[in-house]
Amino acid sequence: MVKFKGYEFVDGGVCAAAGFTAGGVIAGIKAGNTTKRDLAMIYCAERCKTAALFTTNKVKGAPIIVSKEHLSDGYAQAIIVNSGNANTCNPDGIEIAEEMCELTAEALEINVDDVLVGSTGVIGQKLDIKPIRIMIPTLAKSLSPKNSGDALEAIMTTDTRKKEVAVEFEMDGRKCHVGGISKGSGMINPNMATMLAFITTDVCINRELLEKALRKVNDLTYNMVSVDGDTSTNDTIVLMSSGLAKNEEILCEDKSYEKFENALYAVMMNLARETARDGEGATKLIECIVNGAPSEKAARAAAKSVISSNLVKAALFAADANWGRILCALGYADADFDISRTSVELASAKGKLTVCTDGSGISFSEDSASKILSEDEIKILIDLHDGDESAIAWGCDLTFDYVKINAEYRT
Amino acid sequence: MVKFKGYEFVDGGVCAAAGFTAGGVIAGIKAGNTTKRDLAMIYCAERCKTAALFTTNKVKGAPIIVSKEHLSDGYAQAIIVNSGNANTCNPDGIEIAEEMCELTAEALEINVDDVLVGSTGVIGQKLDIKPIRIMIPTLAKSLSPKNSGDALEAIMTTDTRKKEVAVEFEMDGRKCHVGGISKGSGMINPNMATMLAFITTDVCINRELLEKALRKVNDLTYNMVSVDGDTSTNDTIVLMSSGLAKNEEILCEDKSYEKFENALYAVMMNLARETARDGEGATKLIECIVNGAPSEKAARAAAKSVISSNLVKAALFAADANWGRILCALGYADADFDISRTSVELASAKGKLTVCTDGSGISFSEDSASKILSEDEIKILIDLHDGDESAIAWGCDLTFDYVKINAEYRT
Repeated sequence: MVKFKGYEFVDGGVCAAAGFTAGGVIAGIKAGNTTKRDLAMIYCAERCKTAALFTTNKVKGAPIIVSKEHLSDGYAQAIIVNSGNANTCNPDGIEIAEEMCELTAEALEINVDDVLVGSTGVIGQKLDIKPIRIMIPTLAKSLSPKNSGDALEAIMTTDTRKKEVAVEFEMDGRKCHVGGISKGSGMINPNMATMLAFITTDVCINRELLEKALRKVNDLTYNMVSVDGDTSTNDTIVLMSSGLAKNEEILCEDKSYEKFENALYAVMMNLARETARDGEGATKLIECIVNGAPSEKAARAAAKSVISSNLVKAALFAADANWGRILCALGYADADFDISRTSVELASAKGKLTVCTDGSGISFSEDSASKILSEDEIKILIDLHDGDESAIAWGCDLTFDYVKINAEYRT
Repeated sequence: MVKFKGYEFVDGGVCAAAGFTAGGVIAGIKAGNTTKRDLAMIYCAERCKTAALFTTNKVKGAPIIVSKEHLSDGYAQAIIVNSGNANTCNPDGIEIAEEMCELTAEALEINVDDVLVGSTGVIGQKLDIKPIRIMIPTLAKSLSPKNSGDALEAIMTTDTRKKEVAVEFEMDGRKCHVGGISKGSGMINPNMATMLAFITTDVCINRELLEKALRKVNDLTYNMVSVDGDTSTNDTIVLMSSGLAKNEEILCEDKSYEKFENALYAVMMNLARETARDGEGATKLIECIVNGAPSEKAARAAAKSVISSNLVKAALFAADANWGRILCALGYADADFDISRTSVELASAKGKLTVCTDGSGISFSEDSASKILSEDEIKILIDLHDGDESAIAWGCDLTFDYVKINAEYRT
């Protein structure tokens, strides 16, 4: 986890902010599943100002269509989510997503328009509403500020690591929180968001600024992650604000707004980074930092191109300092810069090594390189020496297990 | 091989056209290599009108820079190519590429400006000119119209299949030929060409039309192939015309031009298709045919998105009819169409099966699907029902061996 001054990591995940409770139960949505939680609920005692971002894929899961409609007034109070089935490309998907919201609204005694819905899992198989119908009342009764972990478990699919982060900070003398849970391991190339991320806060903030902060921070975090280049049909990120921290409402981009935005960055950056680390089959987190770019757009394109290259990813799996593939990926990035000035360093907890300057290779110790690259967190530091802009992107290595997981996922 | 009426497949590869000879020898360019040919030469008795296309990667191999300069007058007579080292990102790369041309010109007693040069292999390691200097005279003496296969072997790296095609056809009562050799297995996402393809013809044709035909056919063939999404730094395709078929020179886009363009398509389409089949680690050729698109651009983007998706590729490795991933890849393609009309069929020598209509799944026999997908040539037939345009793209499955090859390639 990357620490930020003035923000303390705390427990509680999506329930760290005042007013929020969560739960997760086993509904048996995927036939034969009787051991893993697969139905999650997040609830706030207050109606929340809510911002959300959804996939840019033209194929959109039914839950996204329903959630967008329910969020048209900018408010939400609960989220219901299942794993094991994406409820996407099904003729009756919208009716089923709508019914999930209705059942939740009934159990919580709130308005159906204040319920958002999410689904993740296999595409194109009918989602059976029966087990969901049976379990929603039980799930509603189980809601507790202590159950962020249960909700998280219930939204996970091929994830192997729990992605849950919350921070505490002060504003106007009040304790404030931003926290969240996130899932996603394959089909991840968020052009918008990861598959599912739910963030909550008790900071009191104007709705437009809430949305502005979400968009900006998402661009710097989830949108800079790629596991396999496949943008999912169900990507969803929701940010709910209860306002219960009782700070003075943030109404413009002042210091308080900045403080909130930084807290959101601390949470979303760590969630996004852990998503890359937990890429399907991954053994290493790869962080690519591009400096000296002529524009932010160029920096972003360059960093993302490197962490997205199958060849770079396979080389790092083998701890092989094949920097030529890094240069190749920079070269086909959609960005204008002078490649003949580029330098590349490889770094990890075991040290740092320059492998390329002025666009050409320099001699280096293969032993040192291999030692550095054998760690499970690798940094690729690129300086384009062609401007002042920077970007960071996160990815993972390409391994036998990635192929294994995806060759076997559906069956 | 896909047959075309009026064009007969013949032997001879890059030497099938009148005037051309070739050769390939073992120079020992990669340390320890004493068994595989690694230095190739292609030569024509006449100076040839020549068109070429090179990588769009900003990082360009030194041989590309030198070849572009030598081709500025539109003519070439010989090509010298090594495998085992890409001569790219080396401070002295251009001098070495230039010396390869000079040595070739000397041995063949031709002008250095009429020699093109290519290199393929690892990036960023100094190319030792000594073994090349020693072997070029021997290579020049070995040139023969029978040695297309030797030249082909010498340009191969991780390729496992020989990609060599030639066709014979009639024009103005003369026998005409188009033939070529091609290498490429990984780092293949030609935004222009595969790594290396050398095509020759004896058809007499105006130079502008030669280039026009190459560009057009390349867009329909190599530019529609992807193995791993990595656009190489050394992609090169060269088309040389000796004119020795003695047909009337083609000066405009008449029926003779069309005949020549079709011959070029027959050769390049089959070479490109075999390149996809020979993708690193591949066990299956995947052909995606998109019909009913609102524009050719949309059809191309849709077809290429499907064959490029790691998730689709991994599913097909497992013969798993996970059509949801096909729809997902269509959904994030950079193309405008109405996804709710889309239908998908899977086909092979074992039969054809509809798996999706109107953007939603339909029930189908998993047994039939698995039988169809167990073949080594799979067709994905997509109808967008949203226009009249079509496109074909070629790819391969993503396997354990892809990871293995690329995790071990450099070391």
